Amino acid sequence: MNSVVIVAAGKGTRFGPDRDKLFIEVLGLPVVAHTWRRFDAHPEVDETILVIRPELRDAFEEIATQLAVRKPYRFAAGGAERQDSVWNGLEKVSPSAALVAIHDAARPCVTPQVIADCFAAARSSGAAVAAQPVTDTIKESHDGATVAKHLDRSRLWAVQTPQTFQVAVIRRALSAVRQRGIPVTDDTAACELIGQAVRLVPSLAPNPKVTVPADVPYIELLLAAHAVAHPVR
Amino acid sequence: MNSVVIVAAGKGTRFGPDRDKLFIEVLGLPVVAHTWRRFDAHPEVDETILVIRPELRDAFEEIATQLAVRKPYRFAAGGAERQDSVWNGLEKVSPSAALVAIHDAARPCVTPQVIADCFAAARSSGAAVAAQPVTDTIKESHDGATVAKHLDRSRLWAVQTPQTFQVAVIRRALSAVRQRGIPVTDDTAACELIGQAVRLVPSLAPNPKVTVPADVPYIELLLAAHAVAHPVR
Repeated sequence: MNSVVIVAAGKGTRFGPDRDKLFIEVLGLPVVAHTWRRFDAHPEVDETILVIRPELRDAFEEIATQLAVRKPYRFAAGGAERQDSVWNGLEKVSPSAALVAIHDAARPCVTPQVIADCFAAARSSGAAVAAQPVTDTIKESHDGATVAKHLDRSRLWAVQTPQTFQVAVIRRALSAVRQRGIPVTDDTAACELIGQAVRLVPSLAPNPKVTVPADVPYIELLLAAHAVAHPVR
Repeated sequence: MNSVVIVAAGKGTRFGPDRDKLFIEVLGLPVVAHTWRRFDAHPEVDETILVIRPELRDAFEEIATQLAVRKPYRFAAGGAERQDSVWNGLEKVSPSAALVAIHDAARPCVTPQVIADCFAAARSSGAAVAAQPVTDTIKESHDGATVAKHLDRSRLWAVQTPQTFQVAVIRRALSAVRQRGIPVTDDTAACELIGQAVRLVPSLAPNPKVTVPADVPYIELLLAAHAVAHPVR
């Protein structure tokens, strides 16, 4: 069986102190509900672990009712850093799970295809991440004000989520990170630490993250197009 | 006075062999017409140089009529590579121009603010480019299939256009590139070659490039929002 850990414990301060970006309503549902539904409806997903701030548990239970979710779900508490949240989520994954997808709650447009492709790549190679070739020209700056160095774009990939793993692999990787007290910003970086190769899974459809209010209209556009193509049962 | 060179000679093969992405209609106008209008309407722009494929000259004249453009414009012929096209465009810039903005025709959503900010930065420092801090996690891959290296995102900027210069500076930079026969993918890279510092100008509003058909709905959304905020005279 396969699990998904949806990381929904972030604060997202760029929406202002009193607004949680995951609860912005888009097409009548909070952003995080759209994300949850994508995985709940996916034929290869058997259970959902939601990593949340505990005080929001009732709000998430309400979403479960609203969505009439089909698959079992459990909650885990968010930690101090993202890697702590993921760790807490992994502890709630069923012992019989072979693969786990770790996904940002703020990426509601993830497609069924990229979820399936990530599971397939993780099954065969241990670790995989949805990624897009970088299309922008990228420069390095040391001071944030002037260009220091031009980077070769043809070698650069923007990685997103899902980041998908054999459960044993990500447990080993995050455990190594925790033992050495190294902060990592994404879960595949933990794999690099234990010498686990990470496959890049081309993510062809847009899979943006809600980060600032200006992102919302684009997310809405993508969700509306998906809703037309895949009407909810 | 200030000039803009709009680079509109690319083939954009990702839209298919028979479709020119610059002529995709959005809100009743070709993409390149939206781009042209943004600069033509800008108080700091005095003339427009359009670098085009010569066989499309009539189509561009038709756009000029449709837009009722206010500022003088001239055409230059596209070259083999982007840097050749820019060079040809610079040759048509008025001798009295102090600053020149070089802009991708496929970025129609460029805002008046970022155009003004780029001119201001180029005036004081010689060279400046619209840029956004990278928000994605970026990995380097040598084989395009697995992750080789994690990059420190906090130092990375995605650069766009306009790329704006004192005219003498960009002429000297591109001339050095041509003498040494080095290919450069953007005009600020040419500045690095002659030791000219390039200022990063934070581009706060989305400024996407039409690259694939899937980009069009987002571009349309942004153009429609701008049209509401800034009705055409």
